[in-house]
Amino acid sequence: METFFTLLEKRVDDCSSLLCVGLDPHVSDLKEPSPTSALDFCLNLIKQTAPYAAAFKPNAAFFEVFGAEGWTALKQVIEAIDAESKRLGSMIPVVLDAKRGDIASTAEAYAKSAFETLGAHCITLSPYLGKDSIDPFLNYPEKGVFLLCKTSNSGSGDLQDIPLPDGNLLYEHVAKLAQQWNTKNNIGLVVGATHIEATKRVRAAAPDLWFLAPGVGAQGGELEAALQAGLRKDGKGMLIPISRGISRAEKPGRAAAEIRDEILHIRRGLQK
Amino acid sequence: METFFTLLEKRVDDCSSLLCVGLDPHVSDLKEPSPTSALDFCLNLIKQTAPYAAAFKPNAAFFEVFGAEGWTALKQVIEAIDAESKRLGSMIPVVLDAKRGDIASTAEAYAKSAFETLGAHCITLSPYLGKDSIDPFLNYPEKGVFLLCKTSNSGSGDLQDIPLPDGNLLYEHVAKLAQQWNTKNNIGLVVGATHIEATKRVRAAAPDLWFLAPGVGAQGGELEAALQAGLRKDGKGMLIPISRGISRAEKPGRAAAEIRDEILHIRRGLQK
Repeated sequence: METFFTLLEKRVDDCSSLLCVGLDPHVSDLKEPSPTSALDFCLNLIKQTAPYAAAFKPNAAFFEVFGAEGWTALKQVIEAIDAESKRLGSMIPVVLDAKRGDIASTAEAYAKSAFETLGAHCITLSPYLGKDSIDPFLNYPEKGVFLLCKTSNSGSGDLQDIPLPDGNLLYEHVAKLAQQWNTKNNIGLVVGATHIEATKRVRAAAPDLWFLAPGVGAQGGELEAALQAGLRKDGKGMLIPISRGISRAEKPGRAAAEIRDEILHIRRGLQK
Repeated sequence: METFFTLLEKRVDDCSSLLCVGLDPHVSDLKEPSPTSALDFCLNLIKQTAPYAAAFKPNAAFFEVFGAEGWTALKQVIEAIDAESKRLGSMIPVVLDAKRGDIASTAEAYAKSAFETLGAHCITLSPYLGKDSIDPFLNYPEKGVFLLCKTSNSGSGDLQDIPLPDGNLLYEHVAKLAQQWNTKNNIGLVVGATHIEATKRVRAAAPDLWFLAPGVGAQGGELEAALQAGLRKDGKGMLIPISRGISRAEKPGRAAAEIRDEILHIRRGLQK
């Protein structure tokens, strides 16, 4: 059965990369504050970095801020990734970073929006509303979700680090639930690369799951320590999203290639 | 200082209502599955129910599912509420039910999208990422947020009911944090009317905050018990969102008037 994670692992093998290129057309990085400029920004990044991208991660917020036209641009971005994938002969999965979370028919509508209307392969979701809020997404067997577990921001501890009576921190409990819920190989976790100790604890709690590990570079996360803490025994299991570290580089393609290679290098060192 | 909640309380007084009319253009309730039909559905509801609505609550998911055109419809819905407010001479606040939650510049973009691009007065947010994920919204002093606390779905207990070492359940802890964080009178809580005991506990933990209390009617929540558990001492502090119970009624305006009156009747009984 092909799931999002089998698709991802195939792509990881095809391009020898754990790099996830973030598509964050933040208005301050655009030539002008327009959806056209946001689209151009993303199309350029896709073209330059596709050979090194295990996945692309457009962030819904930076499109939504432009209203309907932003939404059109987001759809065009995902279509452009599909076209680039066909050109390369290797499907590059799209993780829609939307951090949605709602219940019942509303969750169904969000799932349909992400997976059908937009055509994303995976979405980030909040776990706060519980398993039944995630099911409408899991009901798409070929799609995937990354549940927020331990996020990269400094305020993440307000809730996520709360200690539970059994000795787990709340985020570890979420990791264990996700590991249990992952009966169809379509759940991963968001674990900030800014928190090395937390990454170790989440890996212990969820030995099989893929992590989406933001925070390397701009937010101060260190790549080697994060990979050491979070890679699975098979040397996979971690997607490293980088946005500004690539988009603001003089040559984004070269920056992506270098990060891909650095990850490979570290990974080989760890597997010795 | 005018905040969202002073605006809301003025409207509550103007229309003697705690009813929040949900605008959920679920595809199964539309004449045809199109954004035009979603817009018509909402415009009709707004026109018929405005005199009895303390607030309107459009749900982003049912618009997003139609892509860019859905987003255009959502903006038109909010504009129509503004126009209806002007006609009535009393501003009806718009709570965008979007359950967003992200960090830093992404949260800023979501806040800008909701409050500036769309023109909503308030938004629902997840608390899972912590205070710094909410700040970009709180930085709009005249706007408001409802943080998810105890949601109306049956799976809400997976995380929200986790007992903490201090004897609080997680959702009570969230309520206490929200009460602490509410230094500018712009934070409320989502507390499902399907959970009466939880509503009592949240009211005890957050005596001052407004609740958005979904689940009456379609989800089985009982109005009188919910109001008894959640109203503040001043007889306010609870918005009762109803969607299908109004939109599927033969005469939505009459249904809204009846619910408004029922709430008033119960409220008077409780204050005796």
